[in-house]
Amino acid sequence: MDSQAVSAEQAPSTAERILDAAEDLFAEKGYSATSLGEVADRVGIRSPSLYNHFKNKEALYEAVLERLLADFSAPLSELEGGQVTNERIIFWLETIVRQHHANPNLARLLQHAALSGGPHTNALIDRLFRPMFEPRAEIEGQSISLFENTGLQPWAVMAFNNLVMSYVTMAPMYRDLLGQDPFSEEALEKQLALIKTLLKAVFEYKGS
Amino acid sequence: MDSQAVSAEQAPSTAERILDAAEDLFAEKGYSATSLGEVADRVGIRSPSLYNHFKNKEALYEAVLERLLADFSAPLSELEGGQVTNERIIFWLETIVRQHHANPNLARLLQHAALSGGPHTNALIDRLFRPMFEPRAEIEGQSISLFENTGLQPWAVMAFNNLVMSYVTMAPMYRDLLGQDPFSEEALEKQLALIKTLLKAVFEYKGS
Repeated sequence: MDSQAVSAEQAPSTAERILDAAEDLFAEKGYSATSLGEVADRVGIRSPSLYNHFKNKEALYEAVLERLLADFSAPLSELEGGQVTNERIIFWLETIVRQHHANPNLARLLQHAALSGGPHTNALIDRLFRPMFEPRAEIEGQSISLFENTGLQPWAVMAFNNLVMSYVTMAPMYRDLLGQDPFSEEALEKQLALIKTLLKAVFEYKGS
Repeated sequence: MDSQAVSAEQAPSTAERILDAAEDLFAEKGYSATSLGEVADRVGIRSPSLYNHFKNKEALYEAVLERLLADFSAPLSELEGGQVTNERIIFWLETIVRQHHANPNLARLLQHAALSGGPHTNALIDRLFRPMFEPRAEIEGQSISLFENTGLQPWAVMAFNNLVMSYVTMAPMYRDLLGQDPFSEEALEKQLALIKTLLKAVFEYKGS
């Protein structure tokens, strides 16, 4: 069955189709509520075929996390590759807002894991976010040093990460209050405008 | 069995104990993953006794939501009772940060419902947050009108709500990165300092 699925040149491999289905299900239901049988059903293969690719649920979950990490850590590596200015921080945050909007699965999966657990998730969090939590002597911009001087830098980093991720995990619930689909392009532009306004307000704030 | 549990004068009634256990379980696992059998087990009663108090899981969930709503809507009613100034907004947000820190169940339960569903939750969200989303001609403070002029007011309200709630739903995952227990008193003070700094930055921001 597996080999038949990989006939057309552009078609994803069976392993990729398993990863796609597993990512959606883990994001929807969390680690413990997802079964390998459901993943196989969604792919349209039998469970034994799935074991040819991933030895168990934990290995599949880890592979899903690794693939998401590769995608979602790229903008931070890009930011870290040059001097960290306020403009580049704004650009970086805009990039990850768009990325979470295009694929809400990472935020949902992490949120499930934070609420109900999931193996390897803390290690992922560490690899994904650690660079932001390291003190950076070379950071420019008065607001960043404002947070650093008060010991609030890690809390600010967490807050902005949460702000970006909780948009995709919570927004469905605000649909009626916002008066529009939070996943529309128009809604995305408003979220971006808000985040930029918050960042600029922080960058210009002199403290009190 | 029920009547024996309500012997001491200060002891909670069986119905209250059922609500306490159900609130914890719904917050831990979400609506669909929680069974009435587990709730009964945690209270230490048999399932048939539970049905004397709540006719089914949906009714129990709704009662849990109603009790949380009564607690968590009080600070907003208080705010709405007087003129909405920047100082009173800061005080209100500080109050709800402390409230979610003291009882993370509402945020966790809402987050589960946003990810995986739960009956009556959208109605709760509406009753809890609607007043904040209504346009308020009488609001003072330049930053609020900044958001209103750009149509971002609902997005700002959502963002600050999410910021407060995602602290308790996501923070466990940041424990190592923060270098301390996010539920300690010291951590709470840092979260409060951060939120106040963000609000003041927004209040003083003149736009660009």
